[in-house]
Amino acid sequence: MEKLYIIKIGGNVIDDPKLLNQFLEDFSALNGCKILVHGGGKLATNLASSLGIKQIMIDGKRVTDAETLDIVIMVYAGLINKKITANLQRLQCNAMGFCGADGNLIRSAKREQSQIDFGFVGDILSDGVDTKQFESLLHKGIVPVICPITHDGMGNLLNTNADSLATAVALAMKPFFNVSLAYCFEKKGVLRDTNDDDSFIPVLSKQTYLKLKDAGAISKGMIPKLDNAFKAMEGGIKELTICHAANIIGLKTQITGTQLSK
Amino acid sequence: MEKLYIIKIGGNVIDDPKLLNQFLEDFSALNGCKILVHGGGKLATNLASSLGIKQIMIDGKRVTDAETLDIVIMVYAGLINKKITANLQRLQCNAMGFCGADGNLIRSAKREQSQIDFGFVGDILSDGVDTKQFESLLHKGIVPVICPITHDGMGNLLNTNADSLATAVALAMKPFFNVSLAYCFEKKGVLRDTNDDDSFIPVLSKQTYLKLKDAGAISKGMIPKLDNAFKAMEGGIKELTICHAANIIGLKTQITGTQLSK
Repeated sequence: MEKLYIIKIGGNVIDDPKLLNQFLEDFSALNGCKILVHGGGKLATNLASSLGIKQIMIDGKRVTDAETLDIVIMVYAGLINKKITANLQRLQCNAMGFCGADGNLIRSAKREQSQIDFGFVGDILSDGVDTKQFESLLHKGIVPVICPITHDGMGNLLNTNADSLATAVALAMKPFFNVSLAYCFEKKGVLRDTNDDDSFIPVLSKQTYLKLKDAGAISKGMIPKLDNAFKAMEGGIKELTICHAANIIGLKTQITGTQLSK
Repeated sequence: MEKLYIIKIGGNVIDDPKLLNQFLEDFSALNGCKILVHGGGKLATNLASSLGIKQIMIDGKRVTDAETLDIVIMVYAGLINKKITANLQRLQCNAMGFCGADGNLIRSAKREQSQIDFGFVGDILSDGVDTKQFESLLHKGIVPVICPITHDGMGNLLNTNADSLATAVALAMKPFFNVSLAYCFEKKGVLRDTNDDDSFIPVLSKQTYLKLKDAGAISKGMIPKLDNAFKAMEGGIKELTICHAANIIGLKTQITGTQLSK
């Protein structure tokens, strides 16, 4: 089966122009079918602050009221997505920037209000990824660049977690491609000691993950990322890496960052 | 040859939610291949004002400094483009929102500084429209929704006049489609008397246009629009209408707004 790289970059990469540029160069040099999923970065928070729109974060998740939704649409689907796309074009990589509404690529449902009302936040539907549309784009040599905004098919755009988005796309594309999924950030991998960047774990099993989580060695921000990553693994994604955005060239040989294992 | 509707809507349509919604319903009901080009509206000016970024307009054209460029990318390629796209999806119209960098669809060059430096403004190159990419999208049933941001292929996004963009796409697609081009706005057509909405001219020749312009009957804002429209006509676009956004249903029979003639 044909290889498909799905690479997610987080906010810290986007906030660091030098790291982002190096990443885009490496990404554009990666042969074959590929999809880039990007997160948000501090730009949305900064814009909200300049406009005097108060941002509420609960467990690292943004509460998205109507004003904040407009801000994340502008920053994620506009500024970040189009600057990345223009830079990939400069690097001869035929990128097309999308949100989930474009071509109905990714459909979600507004999260039901449980204890916390996160507002205009969407969870991707189990059949929400239009695999035929992605396949058709990829086979035309197009490189989709996806921002974490989806839609509900009823005219509403919804803020969506970028790790979850990368996971959903990877799982949906698995029947059609040999998917290699990488969550890239500003650390070398999953760290045993968050203060020591060299303490990354080369191979992490689910059992070890749960132990480290119980012991408090794996910190808050890594937990949803790893839950997503193990969900992808359990869904059958075999090549799965959590690595530094500067090390994606190692994806070809699988000697980079933290690999997940059963 | 297959018909292709290219419809441009201006800022006043975007600023009027009721008119915009009615337009999107009519647009989605139009059969066959179609492209929507949208302008900016007051949203960019309002956002700049909220952020304390001074906007300079010369002859109705925005001077685009670096901060303003970020604003128009956010508002045009983000907020407006994605909200239109999500609403067209709601109406079962398979829209994909693009700027010129996406898939290298529209390439421009930064305008040379003459007497006035307009900043990060791009003029579309004579071979700047990727007709093959547009054809491929259209034949897959996709409806491109284009915002007035283009790119120079060197990583830079550029603010571009939406009327010029619609004209350039129409002229580039003419060898492959029977193009019907409409510039839609909040008036019934080209008016003899700007204070009388019913004074629209059903058929306008170049000669009459030049006479009315000399007499001052055709006002400032209409001049670049009509120059674009006559450029399209002289380039061989036969169906050419300037009409109210609420009247596009009349495009099928060519009994709407102002038609141009030689």
